[in-house]
Amino acid sequence: MQFQIMNKTIIIFGLLLSYFLAYSQPETVRVPALPENTDATPYVSEALKKCKIQKASRLIFEGKNYTFLPDLASEKMIYISNNDGGLKRVAFNLSGINNLEIDGQNAAFMFDGYICPFILDKATNITLKNFSVDFKRSFHSEGIIVGGCTDSLDISFSKAYNYFVHNNKLMFTSDKVISKDNAGDQLLVQYPFWHLLEFDKDRREPAITARDYLNVQNMIVKELNPGVVRIFWPGIRGVVGNTMIFNATERSIPAITISECENTRLLNVTLHHAGGMGVIAQRSRNILLDKVIVTPSQGRMISLAADATHFVNCAGKITMQNCTFENQKDDATNIHGIYVKILELISPNEAIIKLVHYQQFGFDFLKKGVKVEITEAGSMEPYQQNRVKSAERINKEYTRVVFETPIDKKVKAGDIIASTTEYPEVLIKNCIIKNNRARGLLLGSRSKIVVEDCYFHTQCAAINLEGDGRFWFEQSGVRNLTIRNNVFDRCNYSLMLGLGVIMVNSGIPDEKKAVSKYNKNIIIENNTFKVVYPTILKMYSVDNLIYRNNKVEQTYDYKLDDWWVKQKIKCFEIDNSTNISIQE
Amino acid sequence: MQFQIMNKTIIIFGLLLSYFLAYSQPETVRVPALPENTDATPYVSEALKKCKIQKASRLIFEGKNYTFLPDLASEKMIYISNNDGGLKRVAFNLSGINNLEIDGQNAAFMFDGYICPFILDKATNITLKNFSVDFKRSFHSEGIIVGGCTDSLDISFSKAYNYFVHNNKLMFTSDKVISKDNAGDQLLVQYPFWHLLEFDKDRREPAITARDYLNVQNMIVKELNPGVVRIFWPGIRGVVGNTMIFNATERSIPAITISECENTRLLNVTLHHAGGMGVIAQRSRNILLDKVIVTPSQGRMISLAADATHFVNCAGKITMQNCTFENQKDDATNIHGIYVKILELISPNEAIIKLVHYQQFGFDFLKKGVKVEITEAGSMEPYQQNRVKSAERINKEYTRVVFETPIDKKVKAGDIIASTTEYPEVLIKNCIIKNNRARGLLLGSRSKIVVEDCYFHTQCAAINLEGDGRFWFEQSGVRNLTIRNNVFDRCNYSLMLGLGVIMVNSGIPDEKKAVSKYNKNIIIENNTFKVVYPTILKMYSVDNLIYRNNKVEQTYDYKLDDWWVKQKIKCFEIDNSTNISIQE
Repeated sequence: MQFQIMNKTIIIFGLLLSYFLAYSQPETVRVPALPENTDATPYVSEALKKCKIQKASRLIFEGKNYTFLPDLASEKMIYISNNDGGLKRVAFNLSGINNLEIDGQNAAFMFDGYICPFILDKATNITLKNFSVDFKRSFHSEGIIVGGCTDSLDISFSKAYNYFVHNNKLMFTSDKVISKDNAGDQLLVQYPFWHLLEFDKDRREPAITARDYLNVQNMIVKELNPGVVRIFWPGIRGVVGNTMIFNATERSIPAITISECENTRLLNVTLHHAGGMGVIAQRSRNILLDKVIVTPSQGRMISLAADATHFVNCAGKITMQNCTFENQKDDATNIHGIYVKILELISPNEAIIKLVHYQQFGFDFLKKGVKVEITEAGSMEPYQQNRVKSAERINKEYTRVVFETPIDKKVKAGDIIASTTEYPEVLIKNCIIKNNRARGLLLGSRSKIVVEDCYFHTQCAAINLEGDGRFWFEQSGVRNLTIRNNVFDRCNYSLMLGLGVIMVNSGIPDEKKAVSKYNKNIIIENNTFKVVYPTILKMYSVDNLIYRNNKVEQTYDYKLDDWWVKQKIKCFEIDNSTNISIQE
Repeated sequence: MQFQIMNKTIIIFGLLLSYFLAYSQPETVRVPALPENTDATPYVSEALKKCKIQKASRLIFEGKNYTFLPDLASEKMIYISNNDGGLKRVAFNLSGINNLEIDGQNAAFMFDGYICPFILDKATNITLKNFSVDFKRSFHSEGIIVGGCTDSLDISFSKAYNYFVHNNKLMFTSDKVISKDNAGDQLLVQYPFWHLLEFDKDRREPAITARDYLNVQNMIVKELNPGVVRIFWPGIRGVVGNTMIFNATERSIPAITISECENTRLLNVTLHHAGGMGVIAQRSRNILLDKVIVTPSQGRMISLAADATHFVNCAGKITMQNCTFENQKDDATNIHGIYVKILELISPNEAIIKLVHYQQFGFDFLKKGVKVEITEAGSMEPYQQNRVKSAERINKEYTRVVFETPIDKKVKAGDIIASTTEYPEVLIKNCIIKNNRARGLLLGSRSKIVVEDCYFHTQCAAINLEGDGRFWFEQSGVRNLTIRNNVFDRCNYSLMLGLGVIMVNSGIPDEKKAVSKYNKNIIIENNTFKVVYPTILKMYSVDNLIYRNNKVEQTYDYKLDDWWVKQKIKCFEIDNSTNISIQE
């Protein structure tokens, strides 16, 4: 199978190589239509080489459908924040490419296997437009619940979700053989899972009572019939007819990675699936997403295996407008910085610091000249502003940092450091966010943020102000946030992560909540809240919040959770905060 | 725990930094004795930097014991043939260092976790001497068989082999916490297993009836008491009191890696353990091992988790003298080249080739000027000699190669290519090889090989001539092999991999055996064979072999296998061969 595709690839490659030379003008490189099942990867590699050599400004696709295999793809070692780093195969390896527009002309890009669609690394002025991204085999698997008993469920899988059971363990695969192992056994490409979540068959959203089952990769299973598997797990429950999502163990294949770039524009791009986040940008300036649509395909319940978008230590302006983010397995966006932890102070102005969360390893941002705040890990209130004089990377986890000014005497091992050099201005406008796992927007920039004219229907809070120095190590803390003219339609119907349509969920321990004012200057106005549970705001450690001119409507679409109702839920649950103005 | 060690490390680091400056002469850098449990890794990094800067010729250790942790170790991305490549932490990262002798002065180097002791990459004239290498926690685990039933065994583990059982699955760990996972659970450093093999408690060698149980990582287990686990596996058997080895899934941490080096000498080095091979050399010239001792420590049954030594595409001279290789989990040595497979011929003198075995990925040896043979994959008889004009690496698996001469018309996809530029001369003299899994020496150089004055007591054949283009893709085929004055003491008592004290086991399919003369010009003389089963030579496809002046003694130490005895075993089982002279 693999060999046949390749044969065809290479023969056609020979025949059509001249095409590039004959019909491409210097400023435009064209990828022709290719016969069905041809591996487009070597064509795109060749086309990108051409773009670089002749400084082309456009790369356009003349066909309607392209298939990309990992076999002959280029490779790149890269750490991608909040995803899993490592050595990646890449279809569109835009490393060090500048001033290029890639126009798919509405082509469908279908990827097959462990191949990253796009990696932009140190690339300036790149526009990607008019194409869709999908994967032939999804990194997650979806099964229909066909029966259940105490501590077990019976799940039926269609042929789209190949699997085998080996010694009572379930492993998902594609139909593609990669190699033989040292025992001589044939190996199919594997798609391991780690997490279960139930989706409602009619609403096409996380089921109201669904909860995350984590660390389930070793669950005992028994195959009842071909395609039907009984899974055993303490306390597992589900509704017959609903879809059980077996989510991927790793976020190893994000759709579009933007790393240390300037001026990236994604226009009219549809992301049906990826084995990681949809758009993940790190240490980059000025990013525009216009009409980026995240939505499932191929009859799937789920679109992306993780967040639709994510922005880490970005700067300049982030704009998302006219976008739809639906049915992805995690939040619609998360905009934040990174905290590193002080391992040891080794001289008055020198420390060894550690990137703590394993999906932040290799995130080198403490470089000469970077302004930083050195911060108390609990309250996240800064002790001191300082600046990096020099930094020596020890490995992907540890760095030795020398500061310009002696480190404040109060600072101790375990405290945290983040960059304050620049925060991105954020505009999220006219977007639809719905039917995904967990939250809508996690907002953590300290520059101006506006969220307006959006529609939300989310499993948990629609807008969440996170940030912590103890688990995720994500720097957050808004300073200028306006939320206006949005519709919050039955958000947080599940209460899976607590109360609130808009919430503060920063990792501040109770004893630090009074001293911390981690989020400041928030205006919430002219929105419509169609509520399931009454709580609109659930917040703490906030300074200066205005809530005014909002419309609140009670809905009756979901059956309420008795336990929560008995708690006498209030509309505004705000504590340890100052200057709060609620104008109901 | 981790933090305490680091605290101490860094404080002492500060105090002793001046030591380097004050007491080191330019040509000699000294690492002082360090307090117990101090992490020596940053000291060695610093010392190696100094060696490089001041072009020191000696690095010496003044203490008796050093502990190395991975936390603050440097990192290196490297592909290591027949082991598992990737990003490694390294204690002695000798990349690009020349003309240095590292003298441990009989110090014990104790490593703790996933840290490679030594990587020599593009390093010339390096001598390593007078130290031992061990790991606090072994990458394999050893349990005592305390009971058994149909399809199950009860295994008792000492505290040296930490483990936990999660949902009926067994995972070995150390006692060191590395992080919390996304579920918030604490994670210990894990030591996954993949393979079981039983060792005899009295003989301290693979049990006579032991067989490899492969791919057992998902076996169902039940903890009977703390430290006692019942494992379930179809057909599993074992003798109460014997040791069951749970061998590591990966060979990710070899002890000493020598890659693209010249003139490497290992003198008086003891390797007690590593999570991979002991000495693995690739694409290197002139390697001397004198008094390299592989032997278990800490009451363990097993020394290394894989082969004691291994040499791939090496050149110049390989000498191993006065060495002992015992109780390692695989062969004592394997000296061979690499075959790549032709994926497609894309022009008369151009092909896309693939490294096939996953532990050969990244083994880039087809470079401009390299002489090659293009060979029929079954018989391994060459079609053509040719030479590489240019090569473009696509990724770690695939390379596009242009040859100087048009490719022979008979060559087709699936055929294989190996380098013929140079083969290493080999001398193996006065070595002891015993009690390990599988074979003694796998000899595959086409230059002169002499094996003399050695003692062998091996589970399978003592000397094996392998090589194949279908599974391992190891180029072999001797041309000048002399085996003399050795004692073969009850070798191949298990018959696990077939008959013969000295055997050809090349992967030549039956229909090709007559046309292939893969091994040539072998002299076996003046040896003593103390045999368990009568078969001394089991060979095929050989040309020109002389067997003379050898002494054969029958032994009665092992109970013979009835099935084999009934086969009417002959002393010399040689077929499809020419010019064979057996002088009994």
